[in-house]
Amino acid sequence: MRIGELSRRTGVPVPTIKYYLREGLLPGGELTSPNQAQYGEAHVHRLKLVRAMVEVGKLSVAATRDVLNAVDEPGNSLHQVLGIAQAAVTPAPVAADPEDWARAEELVDALVVRHGWAVKPDNPARHALAQLVVTFRDLRQDDLLDLFDDYAVAAERLSTAELAMIGRREGLDAKVEGAVLGTVLGDALIGAMRRLAQADASHRAFEAARG
Amino acid sequence: MRIGELSRRTGVPVPTIKYYLREGLLPGGELTSPNQAQYGEAHVHRLKLVRAMVEVGKLSVAATRDVLNAVDEPGNSLHQVLGIAQAAVTPAPVAADPEDWARAEELVDALVVRHGWAVKPDNPARHALAQLVVTFRDLRQDDLLDLFDDYAVAAERLSTAELAMIGRREGLDAKVEGAVLGTVLGDALIGAMRRLAQADASHRAFEAARG
Repeated sequence: MRIGELSRRTGVPVPTIKYYLREGLLPGGELTSPNQAQYGEAHVHRLKLVRAMVEVGKLSVAATRDVLNAVDEPGNSLHQVLGIAQAAVTPAPVAADPEDWARAEELVDALVVRHGWAVKPDNPARHALAQLVVTFRDLRQDDLLDLFDDYAVAAERLSTAELAMIGRREGLDAKVEGAVLGTVLGDALIGAMRRLAQADASHRAFEAARG
Repeated sequence: MRIGELSRRTGVPVPTIKYYLREGLLPGGELTSPNQAQYGEAHVHRLKLVRAMVEVGKLSVAATRDVLNAVDEPGNSLHQVLGIAQAAVTPAPVAADPEDWARAEELVDALVVRHGWAVKPDNPARHALAQLVVTFRDLRQDDLLDLFDDYAVAAERLSTAELAMIGRREGLDAKVEGAVLGTVLGDALIGAMRRLAQADASHRAFEAARG
């Protein structure tokens, strides 16, 4: 199909497709003349994947390219691709007082040990968690730190269910794609669920009693 | 204190403080001369709150202002402020095929009924969830939809624990601040926890067996 048909099939505008081609998010089509290329079903699927990551998952174009390069690299294991996808969705920490930071890291290390998690010392999610500890303490919201174990247990259950489901898929490509989407879109999913559950809990706790 | 001291106390650069003042995220100080203002402890705390929302929670300046205006409005209940904070962190849906969208909304409606959630029909998290249903189906990841109930149960447990903790706080201001931070930073928190738990689960499922 030509680029116009690719656009109709995916709902992505032609200029956006050209931008993704230039940025290396989408492999080029087969040239049938110097100014015309043909695209196939693999392009349709890849373009939908890019759209899911950029528009729904809110990943930057650079981060999306990093993840897709990892997916395309034949030597990468599922565990490696997952690590790269995780790093792409984890924001870099902002500056903090070194002493506060060290105290926060202690709390995170203790949590990791308590839950028996085998994670590398340089896993970026450790820093993201330390950042939140520093922030909650700085704002004198220390009681919220007591919720961390509830969050850890919930995260553990979800990850186990998700990876079991992905493990049941046939073929490495399908597994890798599931792991990437679970990581990138899983945040939006648990976010939306939390808001619905919270609205309900808040209604019951603070509104229903008022009649 | 002067603006320089406010900057030292919070780690926020003076130009950024001036920007937040102009954007109405921070109330003005008390003018001691036409060019000089004095700031107090309330400014220190508010500035830390703004920083947490913008830099750690990745909220836009406009969304942060919406939430803080809701916090400052004396007539607002906790339930109302929570609704505004939730709307601020929920992205607007992108375009989708109307038939696919209607089918996705049916799935979301059924899930809300199944979990007995009292949420308004126009709650933006419903649309965010429908968006994810459309996306997973479009990418032929329908098996991931079977995880939605696990996510719903996890979200319910976390929201109940979080609101119980916030309900135990003294004073409406402390409750409101806890609800806002739980909403804005809770996403980053569950995200970081999921990545650690996932790295561990992936290590056990896909790597440990290889030796």
